[in-house]
Amino acid sequence: MAGKEAPIRGAMVSPKENSVSNKLPSVLLRAGEDRRVRGGHPWAFSNEILMDAETKALPPGSLAILRAPGGEALGLVTFNPHSLIAARLLTSNPEAKVDALFFGRRIAQAAALRDKLIGIPYYRLMHAEADGLPGVIVDRFGDSLVVQVNTAGMDVLTPILLEALEAELSPKTIVLKNDSPVRELEGLKREVTVAKGEDVDPIELTENGATFVADLSGGQKTGWFYDQRDNRRFMAGLAKDASVLDVYSYSGGFGVLAAREGAKSVTCIDRSAAALDAARQAAKLNGVDKIMTFEKAEAFETLEKLRGTAARKFDVVICDPPAFVKSRKDLKTGAQGYRKLVRLAAPLVARGGFFFVASCSHLADTALFAEQVRRGLRDAERTGRILRSSGAALDHPVHPSLPETAYLKALTLQLD
Amino acid sequence: MAGKEAPIRGAMVSPKENSVSNKLPSVLLRAGEDRRVRGGHPWAFSNEILMDAETKALPPGSLAILRAPGGEALGLVTFNPHSLIAARLLTSNPEAKVDALFFGRRIAQAAALRDKLIGIPYYRLMHAEADGLPGVIVDRFGDSLVVQVNTAGMDVLTPILLEALEAELSPKTIVLKNDSPVRELEGLKREVTVAKGEDVDPIELTENGATFVADLSGGQKTGWFYDQRDNRRFMAGLAKDASVLDVYSYSGGFGVLAAREGAKSVTCIDRSAAALDAARQAAKLNGVDKIMTFEKAEAFETLEKLRGTAARKFDVVICDPPAFVKSRKDLKTGAQGYRKLVRLAAPLVARGGFFFVASCSHLADTALFAEQVRRGLRDAERTGRILRSSGAALDHPVHPSLPETAYLKALTLQLD
Repeated sequence: MAGKEAPIRGAMVSPKENSVSNKLPSVLLRAGEDRRVRGGHPWAFSNEILMDAETKALPPGSLAILRAPGGEALGLVTFNPHSLIAARLLTSNPEAKVDALFFGRRIAQAAALRDKLIGIPYYRLMHAEADGLPGVIVDRFGDSLVVQVNTAGMDVLTPILLEALEAELSPKTIVLKNDSPVRELEGLKREVTVAKGEDVDPIELTENGATFVADLSGGQKTGWFYDQRDNRRFMAGLAKDASVLDVYSYSGGFGVLAAREGAKSVTCIDRSAAALDAARQAAKLNGVDKIMTFEKAEAFETLEKLRGTAARKFDVVICDPPAFVKSRKDLKTGAQGYRKLVRLAAPLVARGGFFFVASCSHLADTALFAEQVRRGLRDAERTGRILRSSGAALDHPVHPSLPETAYLKALTLQLD
Repeated sequence: MAGKEAPIRGAMVSPKENSVSNKLPSVLLRAGEDRRVRGGHPWAFSNEILMDAETKALPPGSLAILRAPGGEALGLVTFNPHSLIAARLLTSNPEAKVDALFFGRRIAQAAALRDKLIGIPYYRLMHAEADGLPGVIVDRFGDSLVVQVNTAGMDVLTPILLEALEAELSPKTIVLKNDSPVRELEGLKREVTVAKGEDVDPIELTENGATFVADLSGGQKTGWFYDQRDNRRFMAGLAKDASVLDVYSYSGGFGVLAAREGAKSVTCIDRSAAALDAARQAAKLNGVDKIMTFEKAEAFETLEKLRGTAARKFDVVICDPPAFVKSRKDLKTGAQGYRKLVRLAAPLVARGGFFFVASCSHLADTALFAEQVRRGLRDAERTGRILRSSGAALDHPVHPSLPETAYLKALTLQLD
């Protein structure tokens, strides 16, 4: 890893030792650019930083002191001269020691919150900036942890992070699921490694009282999407005695729970055979496999086909697609994707039935997404009402200065 | 009422008889102004309508056919030439009969949805456009209904509305709580009348399994704020074994429920003696009066005072203020009010505690409100994370074309 090279500026110590802040390199904000960080924002962008030759030469991921133009220390950051988000605040205390105890306190605080909110050890434990560890995602599956490290700074600090996770939680297994495309923006390799223990896949997990199956090292993201936990519970509440269509079902988080909570029938559609296998296993584990059907298929094609069979309507239709907007240049096409999805799915909702549609595209904001839903309903000539506008579950908190990181938007409608 | 005068154009019939659409007056949209209504939007603004002498002379609240510039009928509207929102769509079917059956179908549909979602007859039954009756609010308290009619069109049609409510629900009591300031924009009188039955105040109601007391004819709005039902349940879930401060407590919807769900102590603050009396009664009815205290006081003053007594911190602080932004010219001052509220309340939240703050100002959108919360936290030098961003309860649906009518925004944070 780049950041593990010998530091070339100041007397930066290896992250394995306790960092002594007065030996850290300094990164200076340009004139007038300190206001946002002083206001509580945890990032400084590369064009806000005085990029002199020395600063530019800092190894990606260096720990540094962020300073106001006048020299005042604003806090400790991880710094990557090659990233748009060049500095990420770890703490506003420039004297802090960034060691396993530092990480441990944040992990313990995050775990205590989740234990109170969720009650069982199946949750997103660390949600990056909102939990005080920029660039770090940790999902907990009982004794197993899946860690995603998405910045050069945290990549350098990974040994400390692992030490702290070990000290706080003594997990049997830690998977380092470092395969996110955002790592490339930070100049990091994409790779999946088992940092502790044996590969335990597939694993069973508990959510909303039901048992599910996840593939921690081979699945999408961390293997499970805890962010929809509350939305799944809400939709299951609407699904009693209902016929349910679960499009982009993945491993059955919505569909199996709906079946378990009393749906009459549930049809899961996904393009991934592995995800459907996991959903099928979950159906069996929850004793609802008899009322569930699984179809490996593309969503848009299947929705068009189902619309052709005029008689087929569902009391509840759930659409939880992958991100249609992956970059700014995708925004228009991706937005149209949501509109098309609604145009194709809404006709399948029975009169008076319920329609759930979500977007996990962080670039498509709530207003844009709601507008696409409105247009799609209009295309489909369906009217209705929005009952609920929701986001990610409680274990996916949002930093108050980063409202744009609330990536998940979901609307639940009743259609006439 | 203005709309009850004899119609002066076409052969408009009295709303008590079945309206025959081909005898209704027509209202024409200007060139290019039909696009939004064709797109599903239920309003036409006065500057979009061809305001010839005949149209201007239509009695406020007239039933009319809204026509595209070419003459094509787009639907039936209620029309008020003196209101900014001049035409409000009742139905896209220009042939529809606007009679008690028409109203009854919409009421029955809305009631069926609430019965499924809420399960007990204590809810917002009709939420205006989203339930197909523009300008009409109906809150249900078992056998008692509180009706708010906020447009000239629905004021004219009130006898039909009452007939339909009678046919569908046979309520013992109907209070016409027509005292909203928005009636003045429609040229309507503000008055409260009992349209059916005896004055039943104070009334008991059930919400989240607890009993509360409301004053239907004398309280704020309809006497109870069902819109916070889900937020109250959520906050009560966080309040177990906690010390709770409920600012702007009104009749105890948050505070009494928190006490009932296991809070250690609950302090309610409100400026209204009547509201606090109702909260006290609710505390007794739920057997939690021993752990509750009630203080008649101004919120800002009390928060400053409590901050002065440094030892006093609460595990949970709830702030559900009245709308600080009542008009566009209030926007800046009102927004600053939310910031100030957060600045004063956040210091009272214990480390690791929970802070709920809401805005029911429909002019302050989610982003503006969140920004004021962020600033207030910064003023108070508190950090934390947003756990939940929520809106009004499920019985307050939103018309897909009117996202701006989602007036209630609430943030729940954990503070460090």
